[in-house]
Amino acid sequence: MMAKLKIKNCAVNTATFGFQAPLSKVIEEVARAGFGAIAPWRREVEGHDLKALAKQICDAGLKVTGYCRSDYFTGAAVARKASLKANIKALDEAAELGASHFTLVVGTGRDLPLARSQVEDGVAQLLEHARDVGVRLALEPLHPVYAADRACINTIAQGLAMCQRIEGKTRKPMLGLLVDAYHVWWDPALEASVKAAGHRIFGFHVSDWLMPVRDVLNDRGMMGDGVIDLPTIRGLVETAGYKGFTEVEIFSTENWWKKPMDETCRVMKERLLTRV
Amino acid sequence: MMAKLKIKNCAVNTATFGFQAPLSKVIEEVARAGFGAIAPWRREVEGHDLKALAKQICDAGLKVTGYCRSDYFTGAAVARKASLKANIKALDEAAELGASHFTLVVGTGRDLPLARSQVEDGVAQLLEHARDVGVRLALEPLHPVYAADRACINTIAQGLAMCQRIEGKTRKPMLGLLVDAYHVWWDPALEASVKAAGHRIFGFHVSDWLMPVRDVLNDRGMMGDGVIDLPTIRGLVETAGYKGFTEVEIFSTENWWKKPMDETCRVMKERLLTRV
Repeated sequence: MMAKLKIKNCAVNTATFGFQAPLSKVIEEVARAGFGAIAPWRREVEGHDLKALAKQICDAGLKVTGYCRSDYFTGAAVARKASLKANIKALDEAAELGASHFTLVVGTGRDLPLARSQVEDGVAQLLEHARDVGVRLALEPLHPVYAADRACINTIAQGLAMCQRIEGKTRKPMLGLLVDAYHVWWDPALEASVKAAGHRIFGFHVSDWLMPVRDVLNDRGMMGDGVIDLPTIRGLVETAGYKGFTEVEIFSTENWWKKPMDETCRVMKERLLTRV
Repeated sequence: MMAKLKIKNCAVNTATFGFQAPLSKVIEEVARAGFGAIAPWRREVEGHDLKALAKQICDAGLKVTGYCRSDYFTGAAVARKASLKANIKALDEAAELGASHFTLVVGTGRDLPLARSQVEDGVAQLLEHARDVGVRLALEPLHPVYAADRACINTIAQGLAMCQRIEGKTRKPMLGLLVDAYHVWWDPALEASVKAAGHRIFGFHVSDWLMPVRDVLNDRGMMGDGVIDLPTIRGLVETAGYKGFTEVEIFSTENWWKKPMDETCRVMKERLLTRV
């Protein structure tokens, strides 16, 4: 039997509210609900006073888990160069926010082997700056349904192998993985992969896979409303040594994104305590 | 450089026409187009004279690749018992049709480990009858996007491991895999898995993954209209020793299913020669 989660050990990814309010308002809401951390998006920070936001988050007693998210590492040379530049800037912002990691969604391409090698090169390059500013990189394997349009890294085993090729085996990795239950729950190799990933698991996301799913990108469910065995997956992640936050991230244009933030917070808390 | 396909070494899965005509008409159309084989569905055979259909296929110079498809191996005990009975009857029909194999789409469940063990038990049971009637069982791993509603076997490696556990290693397997490019193209372990599957590859399906995809079940594309590198995958399958038919199977309610069969045949042939 898993130990019950504590809400202060849980985080909210701001995408869960569908960007309905400015980040300063979201910070207030998440802190008031008793969560321990927040994962903001670059689009919420752009055009705002970064130092002030960082101070507000800190003063509210919140940690920052992942800063979301990287530009893609794939595409034509000129695009990859622009993306590296943007990612370096984002890493600086992540450092200012005191983020635990910068979340990498890697991109893809028609030529998968080429896309995968572009990702490996790009991540290796970005890692240098990550070391300089002291922000870890968390590579997020996405569900294979996104292999055509979002990410060519689609399993934990594949992501882990890439981390190990880039950084080697190390006790204090700067490059690791974000395990999102929505992306990995189906994986027949899940148990072995999570165990192998061990201290390279930098983040853990929860939501649910609805059935039927109307839209694999934007119809994600609240924990308990779908088919994912979240307690088992949390057990695997914790057994592998993960001690970080359990973070809720729900893309749901037609449902949760339309609800007031306090209602979503209330349901998240209830489900974190009973269904994760 | 891959050798060009020959249309007589290609097969048509009748689902590609959306069941717009009786099987006898479909057989005529497929034979007239010069294909070498056909894969009929149980729904097309039910209520018709099986012996007459078998004779028509044979007289038309066509082979039968897979007979489509099994009832699910998952669910409550009573459902699994009914499904075994239906699958045994379908195997008898497959034998009458002279099918190379009976295609297994295995089902799934909320408890994935349980569902997977039900599949393993059910396939092992069915294999006894498959041996009796001399029809091979081809387990089809489905894309992970179907893990919630159609199949808990989602990679070639996973399917192969199950075949080996059930039947052991053998020179003349009665239990093997159907490799469908649509389901496996994203797999980072594809090359190694296909190689390992070797003589257990009983069938090879082609279609394409459209981008954007409107419906992952029923918006599959004609070869060349999507992102899958089909020549490379065919190369892997052939290098692994597969010498069987390259079979077109396209579920496309809004596009190909609305077209006349002769037009679809013409385009399939052109694409098999140029894009596979």
